[in-house]
Parts: sequence; structure tokens; C-alpha cells
Amino acid sequence: MEMKIGIVGLGLIGGTYAKSLRPYRYHLVGIDIDPLAIAYALDNNIVDEATDDPTTVLGDLDVVFLCLYPDRAVDFVRKHINQFKRDAIVSDVAGIKRYMIDQLEVYKDDIQLVFAHPIAGRETIGIKHSDEAIFQNANFVITPTKHNTEEALNLIETLARQMGFSSVARIQDFEHDDIIAYTSQLTHAIAISLVNSDDDKYDTSRFIGDSYKDLTRIAMINDDLWAELFLRNKDFLTRRINAFEEQLDLLKDALARKDRESLRELMRESTVKRGNIK
Amino acid sequence: MEMKIGIVGLGLIGGTYAKSLRPYRYHLVGIDIDPLAIAYALDNNIVDEATDDPTTVLGDLDVVFLCLYPDRAVDFVRKHINQFKRDAIVSDVAGIKRYMIDQLEVYKDDIQLVFAHPIAGRETIGIKHSDEAIFQNANFVITPTKHNTEEALNLIETLARQMGFSSVARIQDFEHDDIIAYTSQLTHAIAISLVNSDDDKYDTSRFIGDSYKDLTRIAMINDDLWAELFLRNKDFLTRRINAFEEQLDLLKDALARKDRESLRELMRESTVKRGNIK
Repeated sequence: MEMKIGIVGLGLIGGTYAKSLRPYRYHLVGIDIDPLAIAYALDNNIVDEATDDPTTVLGDLDVVFLCLYPDRAVDFVRKHINQFKRDAIVSDVAGIKRYMIDQLEVYKDDIQLVFAHPIAGRETIGIKHSDEAIFQNANFVITPTKHNTEEALNLIETLARQMGFSSVARIQDFEHDDIIAYTSQLTHAIAISLVNSDDDKYDTSRFIGDSYKDLTRIAMINDDLWAELFLRNKDFLTRRINAFEEQLDLLKDALARKDRESLRELMRESTVKRGNIK
Repeated sequence: MEMKIGIVGLGLIGGTYAKSLRPYRYHLVGIDIDPLAIAYALDNNIVDEATDDPTTVLGDLDVVFLCLYPDRAVDFVRKHINQFKRDAIVSDVAGIKRYMIDQLEVYKDDIQLVFAHPIAGRETIGIKHSDEAIFQNANFVITPTKHNTEEALNLIETLARQMGFSSVARIQDFEHDDIIAYTSQLTHAIAISLVNSDDDKYDTSRFIGDSYKDLTRIAMINDDLWAELFLRNKDFLTRRINAFEEQLDLLKDALARKDRESLRELMRESTVKRGNIK
């Protein structure tokens, strides 16, 4: 029988989940409280059916992707815990994993929770910006818990590969949160701070090159979502900010000493390290 | 009579100057000490003639672009000051302007020096990577001195526009150095420090998204050139690093206080500021 997959939250990521799974033989059900998002999904044939009332469809869904902000994903599971199909596999997309597991693992006997993080996004929001290209060659991470069955993990992994992710890794939740504090959250914190440290007395825009543009694009940020991500990962993010500032201070100190060789050594180090990332 | 333009240094930038000016009716002369660069320029019809001996051609050149690292451009002018054509217009490409003016303005009675900065580049070096696309829609800045004639400034401005720069601004040298310390040098300092603060115990590359890649691409850096740029602009760069760290500390403090509203306010500020840059 055709697998039924529900996507809760038809935004940028939910829409991209649906579009990326569309070529496969799944029955896709969209769930959203916004009638415009539902209309868009149906009008563009992104899903087979869509509703603003989860209670009418949850009992039929084999897999449910929670494409919601972390707190709202938690709220959704709590509210609808008795409506999921028996043995339904429920997976999230949150950029913080310890918090999600902490909040949701209490439901381990009711549903099969597979915690995951598609490391991909855009500076835009809403289903109209959803695009299969977002997942192409991107990384997908699963943080298994001791309650996960191998079948459930494999299914989410298969679906992630079908969606276009080129790498699917399994890793412990605290490792995920530590690494993502660096690759994603620190990166955003830097972009925010760089833009905010601009000196308003100049018309800076006439003096920028591609490097500044690339580095600051993510300073256009969804403050509602990212304040939550930052706060829920406060310990690791703070540690990563400190490690970054230590490196920046090494550079600043070399500058103060007019120490050309130390400056060059720091630059050679970063050149080699960055060169190893494709 | 056809204008003769010399390009000293057939590297990434010199090659791009030549390629960008190629569609116009100028006689282009390449000058480089590297026979491979000369052969490449001639074989690919990037210039009309090329030589490793400036003394044979300098006396004929109406315009000379010094596409060299700052110190080498200074050395070149010093060494060949008596070989330039009378009233030749000599322009540089250095990312630091106070230093260049300080070093070269002594020759104001011998040649017409127009100090300029094409704000464009790549992470690669060498004429083989030169590409007209690098200058398309990029910014070009001229820092006039009191010895410049309006004719000379206008000529370089015209040539810059012909090369594809969409904005040509005139600004005082210290303003240039202050702004570029922020938009370019701080940006590179951040990328270097971010990459170097990576925790080697993880295989970070499996957990990165586009934001990290975009932000760190410039961590692959020509240490010879950039150590020089940093040191020659030490005062402004240090001030800009400090201003950036103050902003990052605001964010870190808000995190420590679990102050969601302050975090969101910083994010909203950066979103608006960055949104104003196209």
C-alpha cells in the first residue's frame, strides 16, 4: 500500500520536503493553519491533499514530518499525541537536538520519534520560496535515541536521500548541538554583529565587494526562530563564540606587534583548513 | 592617435584589466617578469604586445596600470621614474590608499598619479583565472590628491566604467582606508578566525550548510598580499575589529541573560541594515 506522509507546516522547509518527495510514489498530506499556504500547495500540486485540521488525517499517516519551529513542533506533538497512527514515525527538522529530545522523548511509547536536521535553508520564508534545489548536495543529520528502531532510522535516511541530500550522517545529539553551534549559529552571530558594527557615517554600500555580501547575507535573519535556536543551545554557542574571539584576538595581537610572520601563519592555517572543505 | 595603455603585472587583476579593456580601441601592452604570464597573454590575444623589460615600452605609454602588490608597485615607480612618458597617467590597484599616496606622492611632478582601488577579486591568483565577469557590477574607488587634474581623474573613471564597474566613487584616502578596513579587511579577519576556531575533533565538513561555506570562502587567502594590507592599515583595522567584538559581546551578553528580546532586537537591526545593501 502506498505510504502516506504528512508534512506539518507548509513553509519554506515543509514546502521543500513536499516538492522533493513529489517525484516518488507517496501520498503526501499537507497540514497548516494558514489557508493561503494550503491553497498554494494544492494549486501547485505540491501535495495530494491538505487540511488545517490535523485530527482528520493524523490517524492515517505512516510518517509525519514536523516542519515547524522547535517550540511549535513540541506543542504539536503534545496536543495531538493521541491522534497519531500506531507506530507512526514522526521526525522533526529543528536545528537543536538535545532540547527536542528532552521535550519529546517522553512520548517514546506512543510514536517512533526520529530526530533529524536538514542543514539547508534560505534567507526567505514561506512555501512560495520552497525549492527542491535547497536540498541538493546538502547535509542531513539524524541524532538517534536508544528507543529508535533500525527500520525507522533507515526509512528517514532513505527519504532524506530521495529528497536530494548528498550526505546523511548519524551522530549523538550533543555532538550535533556542539558542531551546529559552530557551523551555523556562530556563523549567524558573526554576520549579525558584522552588519551591526557598520559605521553609519559612511555610505558603505558603495565600497563593498562580493566577500562582504557573501558574509553578511545571513544577517537577514528570522529573529523569531533564531533567538529560540540560540537560547536553546546557549552553552555550546557561548563556548564557540569565545573560541572564535580567541582566534580573532591572536590576529589582533599580531597586528599590534606588527608581526607579519604570525599574521601570515594564521592566514596559511585558515587557507589549508578551508581548502579541505568542498 | 590610439591610446597606449600599459598593464604592469599580468596576474588575476592585471589580466582582468586587459581582458576588460580589450573590446575598446586601445593599444594594450603587458609587462611582467614571468615569461609564462607573457606567453599566456600573447597566446590568448589579451594584449597587443608584452615584454619583461619595462624600459623598452614605458616611454610610449599614455596610461600605466600598476597591477602589483602595494610594495612592489611602489618599487616599480621608484625604479622606473625616469622612463615614463611625459604626463603619463599612472594608476594603482592597491587596497590601501594612505600608504600608497605617502610613498608615491613625491613623484607628483614627474607623472600624474591617480590612486584607485577596484573592489573586486577572487580566491585564485594568476592570469589564467582573470575574467571580465570579476568587474561586472563591482565598485571602483578613486582617492584624488590635490595634484590630480580633472582630466586625469575623468580618464581613469571612464576606463573603469568601460571595464564594467557599475559604481565609480571619489573619496578621501583616509575615508577609503577606514571603510575598506570594515568591508574587506575585517571580513577577511573574521573568515580566517572562524575557520581557525574549528574544533578538530569533529569532521565538520559533514555538518555545514551554504552559510558557513559562503562566510569562509575568503579564508583561503593570499597571505603575502593580505599580511601587507593588514599591516599598512593597522590603525583602522584594529578599530574595526574592536567595534565588531563589541557587537558580538552584546549578543553574548544577551545570551548569558537569556534575554530573548535583546537577541531579537539585534537580529532585527542586522536584517534591516543588510536589507539596504543590494
